Amino acid sequence: MVERQSNDPDLDAIFGALAHPTRRTLIEQLAGGPKSVGDLAEPHDVSLAAVSKHLQVLEDAGLIEVEQDGRVRRCYLDATPLSDVFGWLTRYRVFWEDRFDALADHLEDEDQ
Amino acid sequence: MVERQSNDPDLDAIFGALAHPTRRTLIEQLAGGPKSVGDLAEPHDVSLAAVSKHLQVLEDAGLIEVEQDGRVRRCYLDATPLSDVFGWLTRYRVFWEDRFDALADHLEDEDQ
Repeated sequence: MVERQSNDPDLDAIFGALAHPTRRTLIEQLAGGPKSVGDLAEPHDVSLAAVSKHLQVLEDAGLIEVEQDGRVRRCYLDATPLSDVFGWLTRYRVFWEDRFDALADHLEDEDQ
Repeated sequence: MVERQSNDPDLDAIFGALAHPTRRTLIEQLAGGPKSVGDLAEPHDVSLAAVSKHLQVLEDAGLIEVEQDGRVRRCYLDATPLSDVFGWLTRYRVFWEDRFDALADHLEDEDQ
């Protein structure tokens, strides 16, 4: 058996949460500062219930925190799980950099 | 409406492909060099058909290339889509760095 990383279950949830354009847009909206669920839902062309479901996926992945503030549910971005993704990715950085270098060399050869 | 990035459909496929531990392990295996489908499947405790399905998801996301080499299907890692994820992530780097800085400050204050 191939050894599994101990943080794999979190990466499943984080990558899964990021695999939807609405959820990435919600992250982008929250990068501007905390917002209520209503404010977050406003620019989206889907129901408040659908947005709440997406927010739940983000919360389960640890990407947002939701606090009850009187009658308002206020959402905060927590980018910490993105640093786990970043850590996972950096292992492969050499592979895409090698690929881009090879492409640059190829284009240079064509110019000569 | 919130403006969508033109590369969003690809990010959906890439993040979705990365949201499974078997597929991340397959990427890790291919980082060691090209491998046949049989060799890739060997350490996994699932059927060859299940591994082939995971490889198809990776291929659809552009993360691997599959070439027929006689009777053997050989897989190659293509890390280029990971650079798209990296690009998306770096926009949020300041957020987790700020968070880690705040945590470090907090721990420093506790020490004093």
